[in-house]
Amino acid sequence: MLRECLKNLRDTLPLIQNITNYVTVNDCANILLACGASPIMADGVNEVQEIQSICNSLNINIGTLNETTIKAMLLSGETANKLNHPIVLDPVGVGASIFRTNACNTLLKNIKFSVIRGNISEIRALALGEGSTKGVDANIADTITNDNLDLSIDFIKKFSARTSAIICVTGAIDIVANKDTAYVIRNGHPMMAKITGTGCMLSAMVAAYLAANPNNHLLATVSAVCAMGLSGELAYERLDTRDGNSTYRNFLIDEIYNLDGDTLESGGKYEIR
Amino acid sequence: MLRECLKNLRDTLPLIQNITNYVTVNDCANILLACGASPIMADGVNEVQEIQSICNSLNINIGTLNETTIKAMLLSGETANKLNHPIVLDPVGVGASIFRTNACNTLLKNIKFSVIRGNISEIRALALGEGSTKGVDANIADTITNDNLDLSIDFIKKFSARTSAIICVTGAIDIVANKDTAYVIRNGHPMMAKITGTGCMLSAMVAAYLAANPNNHLLATVSAVCAMGLSGELAYERLDTRDGNSTYRNFLIDEIYNLDGDTLESGGKYEIR
Amino acid sequence: MLRECLKNLRDTLPLIQNITNYVTVNDCANILLACGASPIMADGVNEVQEIQSICNSLNINIGTLNETTIKAMLLSGETANKLNHPIVLDPVGVGASIFRTNACNTLLKNIKFSVIRGNISEIRALALGEGSTKGVDANIADTITNDNLDLSIDFIKKFSARTSAIICVTGAIDIVANKDTAYVIRNGHPMMAKITGTGCMLSAMVAAYLAANPNNHLLATVSAVCAMGLSGELAYERLDTRDGNSTYRNFLIDEIYNLDGDTLESGGKYEIR
Repeated sequence: MLRECLKNLRDTLPLIQNITNYVTVNDCANILLACGASPIMADGVNEVQEIQSICNSLNINIGTLNETTIKAMLLSGETANKLNHPIVLDPVGVGASIFRTNACNTLLKNIKFSVIRGNISEIRALALGEGSTKGVDANIADTITNDNLDLSIDFIKKFSARTSAIICVTGAIDIVANKDTAYVIRNGHPMMAKITGTGCMLSAMVAAYLAANPNNHLLATVSAVCAMGLSGELAYERLDTRDGNSTYRNFLIDEIYNLDGDTLESGGKYEIR
Repeated sequence: MLRECLKNLRDTLPLIQNITNYVTVNDCANILLACGASPIMADGVNEVQEIQSICNSLNINIGTLNETTIKAMLLSGETANKLNHPIVLDPVGVGASIFRTNACNTLLKNIKFSVIRGNISEIRALALGEGSTKGVDANIADTITNDNLDLSIDFIKKFSARTSAIICVTGAIDIVANKDTAYVIRNGHPMMAKITGTGCMLSAMVAAYLAANPNNHLLATVSAVCAMGLSGELAYERLDTRDGNSTYRNFLIDEIYNLDGDTLESGGKYEIR
Repeated sequence: MLRECLKNLRDTLPLIQNITNYVTVNDCANILLACGASPIMADGVNEVQEIQSICNSLNINIGTLNETTIKAMLLSGETANKLNHPIVLDPVGVGASIFRTNACNTLLKNIKFSVIRGNISEIRALALGEGSTKGVDANIADTITNDNLDLSIDFIKKFSARTSAIICVTGAIDIVANKDTAYVIRNGHPMMAKITGTGCMLSAMVAAYLAANPNNHLLATVSAVCAMGLSGELAYERLDTRDGNSTYRNFLIDEIYNLDGDTLESGGKYEIR
């Protein structure tokens, strides 16, 4: 199942446009190459639509946002929607500034996203920032644990119903859900939080998996999340006592590069809820 | 002493805003994570003040400067000063263009910096570019050696008195000084000059050490400089014959990640002048 | 021959200005340091001319193009031409959007380039995009093979004659040619296509080799191409079974760092046509 999603990706070699931040852009490009896709990072307002028309999906990441990139995101998103290309939103740091919250609201209003991926704080900020939810949602904790898992799943499914997007929440426990079905994923390693860009890299990979698996976006997203978490585990195993987070970053991308379907299939730890 | 500064950093996990260049931004983010801080690289004029208000310090680096980033620096600096957050200035390449010199003058006029960190050419250009010094300052050489050490220390203390900032000059010999006291530091390795961004990474780390050690900024800066230099030495020891500057960069960040207080305390080579 | 070009580079330590994309800029800076040059990435319109005046050559890369960077490229290019500094153009993705094609036409009209480096698709798009060629040029295939080598060389020599620039086409087989002479180079490894930025890094290195070898730009370019390809081969040999494209990137830069003249001279595989 996961195996097939990875196989489709390696067979398809999709071209992924990324309008993303300048902090982790190089890692995003290299992890896209590692997983079997090709990256294009073009973000100029004069060309994003033309570029998107030759791509297979779009990854929008607001990490280092400014007025110009928002315009580029809206233009490219319009083209992607028109051509029925999947679009991923990574609302980095939404809730940390009004500018980010407003930008996300504008993006959500104008673009139909296939997947929204963030940590639980970001997803909660996104849900609340829209203004249409209060009450129970505000009680969602900043970390998903076994204790609040049911509540979290319920919240995520509802947010998926409202946005018509698959919601992908990553952390110690990951949840990937549409309005009906949630996958709870327990791959990954705490050291992934010690490198910048694991979230950004995952969002880019989700865009690649979506492009290669048009008929099952939910499973495509689950596969990308399992692949990332499992590679984080395998990369950790390779570390020598004197290796730190920089070597870990390299090993993480290396593991994505070497990941095969059997390893992914047997290593993916998920349950359906 | 250095041990306590590092311990405070690991205990505090401060959040550091960086308005920096796009060349070394990823390394700055990863070294901040390595040393025990969290990085935010937001630099949009619409949000920098709000972002700074949730951070613990600010790192301003003019590596790839343009009109928009200057505006963001001024806005964020204003907020940081208001909230009494420490601010580091890294005047990359000041003196290489009138634009940089003018930008630095504007920054120095409008922002109170806790630390200014650069190589001796940059610090000299900064001091002279301000226009208020001539004479002896102009004789400061481009490299700090044992022969010109006294002259250099005197120059740096005077510049500190004038700017009310701790001055941190790095090179083969490092000097960290306020108007009264100078630390002469002899850690580091020549190979650090063979990777891009050692200076940028150090400035980011200084901002982290300052945030975690509010009561002793001078010692916090000395600790960051010793940590960086010592990690440069340790990283060099790990190199294999076929390793080059790219692996060295990874090892350098790795050593910062693994650095413990005892190693820092015993490995720091400094004298007080 | 190649040996001398590398020796000149190591002896000269030229300063290279790069107006380039934010995806691979860090790798470009580190590979410039690795090969024996110094990088400056300043791209602000307010300073690019002053910066270029203290540099030895200019590398223009349109990877993440926008209106502001085009202006900076034109300004810096004007200064470089005036001072007789060599200029490299890397027309990343030209042909993928009208914006890129127009930008390249503007650059070609206003700047005299010493070398234009791209893959065969980009060079073909550049040649056709200029509007003055049709017919045979359109038949140039997307990959240079032994079967279409003569046709490709002919096409490249003609494009060199028209632009007065050395044309450097990289792929499985590389061709470096002016209007009279073509070097066919067979160094390199397929895994180089699995990391982002090998092309960008090579263009930066070409700018360094040109600066250090003013009397023989053709051979300087051949040397840079052989150095890159050979380092790609050597880096591949170092890979462990679990290493992937991220480690490969590090090893590639490491090999450039450690490359000596004898290895380059004996490892360079080229023929003159």
